Order: sequence, then C-alpha cells, then structure tokens
Amino acid sequence: MRIVDLIIKKRDGLPLTKDEINTFIVRYTQGDVPDYQAAALLMAIFLKGMTREEIVNLTLAMAHSGDVLDLSDIIPYSIDKHSSGGVGDKTTLVVLPLVAACGVPVAKMSGRGLGFSGGTLDKLESIAGYNVNLSNEDFRRLIRQNGIVLSGQSGDLAPADGKLYALRDVTGTVPSLPLIASSIMSKKIAAGANGIVLDVKVGRGAFMTNLDDAQALAQIMVDIGVDAGRDMVAVLSDMNQPLGQAVGNALEVAEAIACLRNGGPADFREHCLELASYMLRLAGQGERWTDAADVRQQLEEHLANGQAFARFRQMVAGQGGDVRMVDDPSLLPAARFIEPVSAVRSGFIAQVAAEAVGIASSELGAGREKKGDPIDLAVGLMVHVKVGDSVQPGDTLFTIHANDLDKLAACRSRLESAIAYSDTSVEPLPLFYGTLYGR
Amino acid sequence: MRIVDLIIKKRDGLPLTKDEINTFIVRYTQGDVPDYQAAALLMAIFLKGMTREEIVNLTLAMAHSGDVLDLSDIIPYSIDKHSSGGVGDKTTLVVLPLVAACGVPVAKMSGRGLGFSGGTLDKLESIAGYNVNLSNEDFRRLIRQNGIVLSGQSGDLAPADGKLYALRDVTGTVPSLPLIASSIMSKKIAAGANGIVLDVKVGRGAFMTNLDDAQALAQIMVDIGVDAGRDMVAVLSDMNQPLGQAVGNALEVAEAIACLRNGGPADFREHCLELASYMLRLAGQGERWTDAADVRQQLEEHLANGQAFARFRQMVAGQGGDVRMVDDPSLLPAARFIEPVSAVRSGFIAQVAAEAVGIASSELGAGREKKGDPIDLAVGLMVHVKVGDSVQPGDTLFTIHANDLDKLAACRSRLESAIAYSDTSVEPLPLFYGTLYGR
Repeated sequence: MRIVDLIIKKRDGLPLTKDEINTFIVRYTQGDVPDYQAAALLMAIFLKGMTREEIVNLTLAMAHSGDVLDLSDIIPYSIDKHSSGGVGDKTTLVVLPLVAACGVPVAKMSGRGLGFSGGTLDKLESIAGYNVNLSNEDFRRLIRQNGIVLSGQSGDLAPADGKLYALRDVTGTVPSLPLIASSIMSKKIAAGANGIVLDVKVGRGAFMTNLDDAQALAQIMVDIGVDAGRDMVAVLSDMNQPLGQAVGNALEVAEAIACLRNGGPADFREHCLELASYMLRLAGQGERWTDAADVRQQLEEHLANGQAFARFRQMVAGQGGDVRMVDDPSLLPAARFIEPVSAVRSGFIAQVAAEAVGIASSELGAGREKKGDPIDLAVGLMVHVKVGDSVQPGDTLFTIHANDLDKLAACRSRLESAIAYSDTSVEPLPLFYGTLYGR
Repeated sequence: MRIVDLIIKKRDGLPLTKDEINTFIVRYTQGDVPDYQAAALLMAIFLKGMTREEIVNLTLAMAHSGDVLDLSDIIPYSIDKHSSGGVGDKTTLVVLPLVAACGVPVAKMSGRGLGFSGGTLDKLESIAGYNVNLSNEDFRRLIRQNGIVLSGQSGDLAPADGKLYALRDVTGTVPSLPLIASSIMSKKIAAGANGIVLDVKVGRGAFMTNLDDAQALAQIMVDIGVDAGRDMVAVLSDMNQPLGQAVGNALEVAEAIACLRNGGPADFREHCLELASYMLRLAGQGERWTDAADVRQQLEEHLANGQAFARFRQMVAGQGGDVRMVDDPSLLPAARFIEPVSAVRSGFIAQVAAEAVGIASSELGAGREKKGDPIDLAVGLMVHVKVGDSVQPGDTLFTIHANDLDKLAACRSRLESAIAYSDTSVEPLPLFYGTLYGR
C-alpha cells in the first residue's frame, strides 16, 4: 500500500478502508510516513470530510497507537468526562470527588492547558506538592486505596494523536470535525473509559461558536463512542459568558473547594451537579436514561454532608499535596495587586464576553500560548456579574488579581470592552442547550 | 506573515495576494518553509483552485525563484515551444532546425523524460558524444555562432518549481490545472522566452484525456503568458494514437532525421510543419494571426532543399555529437532483436491505444519510472498502422526492437491488446482539435 494512493483516494472524496487508516496511523507513528504526506492527507480530510465509519476507524487506530490503559482489575466500570474547554471551567475538580463520594471510583488523566487558562493539571499545581506525574504503579495503588486519582498521562497514550495534533496546528487543519472528534475520543478510549460524559461548550468563548457546529461535534463523538462499545452522554453547555466566577488557576481551585463545601456560584454548582449526575447514571446508579431525581438528591447530600470535600482532601493528600491549602484556600498562591473593575453606568448586563475575559486572564499570565510556556498560578480574575443582572454605577463587575501593574491596566481595559449594557431587561443565558445520549 | 495563515486562507477558498504567494515561494525555495506546510498548501490549492491572477503570480514567483535567462543581447526575439508530452513525440528535434533554417535563431532547454519514453535530452544522447550539459558560455557561444542550440538547463532555472514538483509527486497533488500550468510556464519564462508555442496533447496517451480538460489547461497557460507579457499560441493535438511511427529514443531520432530529409510519416511531418509555422509567425515572419500560407511554403522549401537537415547536422556538430550518425542513422544504437507483430484478422483499425504503446515501449527499457533510472536508447517499437487503416491477416502492425527476449514477449502481448479492429470503416483521427491565441 502506497501512502500517496491513500492521499489521492481521500483527495477525490472516497472513503478510506479500515486497513488503509490503520496502515497510515501505524506507519506514521513509527516515523515511516513523512510529515508532508500526513499534512496532505490532513488537508484532504479537512476539505473532503470522513464518514462515520472512517472516523471510528481513525479514532480506534489512534487509540491503539500506544499504551491502552486497562483498570478492569481494580474498578469494574471506568467513567470519564471531557470538556471541550472554556473560560472558568474547573468542573473536573468538583465532579471527580463528588462522584467518588457517591461510591463510584474515578481514575482520571488530565492535560495542561493552551490558551485562556491552565488545564486541570496546572490548576491542581496551585496546591503545593500536588504530584501530577504519577507512576503507573502509584496511579493504580491510589485508585485501589482511595477510589480517586487525578493526574497527568501515565504511559504513552495515543501517541499518533499527539503527533498529528502538532502537525494540524501548523498546517491549518485544526478545526475539522472528524479530526477534533477522533483526537478527543482516541485519548479517552486509550485511557480505558467504559463510559464517557462529554461537556461540549458552545458560544463565543468556546471552540464551537454556534449550536449547530457544537451539536455536530457532540453527535460525532457520541457516535464514535457507541461504535467503539462505550456508553456515551454529551451535554451542550453555554460558553458565551464564563462559568462560575473564578478565572485563573489558584482562584479556580478556591472556587472548586467552595463548591465542594456546598457553596460557590450557583451556575457552577448546577453545572457540576448535572455532569456528576450523568457520570453516576452511566456508572450504574439510578435510572440511566430517564429520571435523575434520586441521583440528584444523593449528589446534593454529599455536597452538604462534607463527603465530597473529604474525597477531594483525600485525593490531594494521596498525591502529596499540602492539605492545609485545601482546608484554608487563603494559603493558595495569591497575587500582589487586587483591584476591582466597576460598572460605568446603570443598566442590565447584556454581555460578559467569555473570549475577552479569557484573553484578559491569559494576558495576566494565567494561560499559555504554546506548550511549555510558564504559567502564573496566582493571577486571574473574578467575574461578579452574569448576563441579565442589573447593575448601578460603581458596582463591582470584576476583581483583577495581578502581579504586574502594566498587565493589570491592560486587563482592565480588555474587561471593560467585554461588558455590554442594555437599558431594557435581558434574559439570563441558559446553562445547557441539550443532551445527546449514546447506546 | 505566518505561512499557516496563508494555508488557512486558501483552505477556506480565498485568493492569495501577490505578496503572500511571493513570500511563500521565496521562503520555500530558501528552505525556510517546511515541506509539510507546502504539502498542506498544495492540497488546498488542488481542492480549492486558484484565480487567473493567483496562477500568474505563482508562475512569476517560481520563474524568478532562481536564474532568469536573458538572451536579448544575442537574439532579438526568443521563441520556445513546449509539448505536454505524448507517445512518439519527437517534434522538437525537427521544428528547431526547421525554424532556424528559416532564419529565426532558436535556443532551447529541454528535459529528461519520465514515463513512456525518454525526453528530448535522452533522445539526443542516442547520438554519440552529443553534449546536453553546456556551460552558460558555450550555450551563448553556440547561439551566436550557429543560431541553434538544444541542451539541458544551464543555470538554476525555477528551483521552486523543481522542489514543488517533487513534493507534488508524493502528496497526490500532481493533476491540478493551476499547479501544472504554473509549473510549465515558470520554466519557459525563466528560460527567457518572448513567444511560446504550446503543444497540448489530448487523448488516452496524454496527461489530459479529454478535450475540455486539455482546453482548460491550454487556456490557463495562454492566459499566464499573456499576463506575463509573452506572445502565446496553444495547439490542441491528438494523442489517442502515437505520433508518427517511431517510439523509443534512437528510433525517434532516426525518424526525426528522415523528416528533416523531407521524408518520414505524413502525420508527424504535418504536426511539425504546423508547430514550426506558429513559431515562425510568433517570431515575426508572415502574418502573425491570419494566413499562414507563405510561412508554410517557406517551411516546406527548407525541408525539401536540405537546409533544415543541415541545421540539425550543424547543431549536433556544435554540441560534440557524431555527425556520421546523423548522415547514416543505421549507426545509431540498435537493438539485438527485431520482430514484427502482425494483424490477427482483417478489418479496419479502430484503435492504436497510445498509452498501451507507451507502456510497451517503457517496459522494453526506453522509458524510466523515476528520476535517474537508466534508459536503453536502442529499444522501442515502430507503429505501422493508424486508426482508419484497413489491414489483412499477417500485415505488420508493429515492429519491436528489444534487447531482452522476455521483455519482447511481454511487449508483444501488450501491443496486441492496444489494437482494436472494426468490421466497418473507421474515420481517421484528426491531428489537431483547435488553436488558442494569446495577445
């Protein structure tokens, strides 16, 4: 099989066979296919698309291009979640201990962030000593011992995806549904998930800015999961405005802790309860597809009775983190300059542009532009208003946490431009736009 | 300017500016743009196309990526021809001396062949001693001295085209009109042509198998030439059956010599007269766009009076070739085994499939599959029938010239499959399907 024939086939809009896709992925992972041939194929896929069958085959080929995690000897059913990324999204930090508190063991591998803020691993490193680089043995030991573990990738999961993602980044082939969907799902499948809850963000601060595109991406991922024998749920959630209040690494950890202590912003709490509910139901608690009332009650109880918080504390302790910071979040890294941004007029908030808030946070130093860039864990901002709120001049809209006065000033003007006022009342934004079920 | 932004623009179907195209070509030629980015851009161009303006800009950028030949101090008007390639196409060997004999100096750079048979340079090397690697000084001296020179590239002409062509070959992006047209025209412009006669072949033995595609390619190339200030003519000529009788390197040289001596197959003679007529008219002899009768008469005279042959002999002598082989073509490299292929039934010839004849010749050793492969100059075949001819069983259809009995046998069966018979009379194929004029 010549790779150029495979490129020509896709260029002409014909579907590739399972064997062709496997051959390409195996040989590309081994370094036997040059990047220029892979780049031509990626562009042909971008412009000609892939059938559901091709996307499933591509996903499975990438998932099996390296190690595939098997936790079946420790936990009977491995439940995972994935968020397509947004501003202020610290959901994993809450839902993992919450689900574990309800008796479902969770072993999750997360990543570092690109863009607006750090990823889950960066956020966790706000807690002094927290080890995200567990050995395979420690990873397994901690699940067995605590029923909860949250670290970086252990082993060489889906290396083909890593290689292709780096190539897509420099060849203009990132925003392709088949390539995005197979990239996300290959990592989940390689990580050994039996059930996967996808949180697909939609809105101006998300990768998918309109509902149709988000729905299409969610549907493809659910389809892949189903064809690969996984249980799937995808929720479409709003990312026109930030989720919760905190944007930035240590600030988000503090907000997650507040939520685990039965507090925190209402929208974020609701978001976490919804996702945790799907995770529990996939894992076999309550009615899987119908009424979630019993599961919901159980989750709220575990937030109220301190069990969810206790599991978070246990997770941090297990991975070497300083639990004093969990008990007292004021010990988390703090910025030197804390200043409010106030409303300049009265009115109803018509917009808190998530992408502008994300960029503002990133420019403070909370995010990174490219892999390996350092992150300032202390900086970020708090968002005190939601679309629909009514404000008076002088009301605090944001609080900026900065370590640099120039950056603080730049952040202030960007945040001011993120806000739009209306003289007439504005409907609040919904939290969710719908749910897709697989299986 | 980031190359990835340029790829994204073309991917989304937007035209690239002159500046963007120039930047890409300059940086790619320097090695500052990796092949994987060029490959992604090529695939995007393949699938999204280019406007006339983009193609002109791409052509000029490639033409100026290396040396640009300027012969204006030696010859007032540089006339060039290009054939898109076919089976039995030895036209250059005849039209160059013919045009020179009529008083128009010709300095042409040719290439080696890929596929069915050798290129013009390979064919010329059938003549012992013929030097196709002239220094720039010798090239200029010979034009000044003889008014005729035919060699390989002197200097580094259109290196961007060479680099991109090699990449297209392995990324499935060869058959793209903008890329084919700009590749051909960039080399002609870099070679300093003022006027260009394009011979665009159409049919089963050509790159373009249908008239619409060939016409589109011819039109784009004429447009490029016009926009670049060149005088342009493109003829669309038949390549469903081989041109002339000889297919193979030494055999084709012998046939070209026969033609220059006022003999040779009628179709090939007519083809050469037509192309030479356009070359003379572009170079200012006779009416440029209207009546060609005077020019035609002049050309026929120079074939009849030995002047065209004399210029060929002078060219060979000037470049160190053994003129005894020109005077007596039986001295050219000859194959060991010469065997006929005979008609198996009576009827009218409905098909002499050019591509099958080309492959048969290539398999004998007359062509090469990849750059640098050796060529057997002696082998090839003679085609004794044309579509429309009437044959009886035992009539000779082909004569095979082979150096290997196994290859001879394989060639025979391939040639038998190239022929189709009809019980009723068959119209001969036309030589030409039309002419496009630029300027």
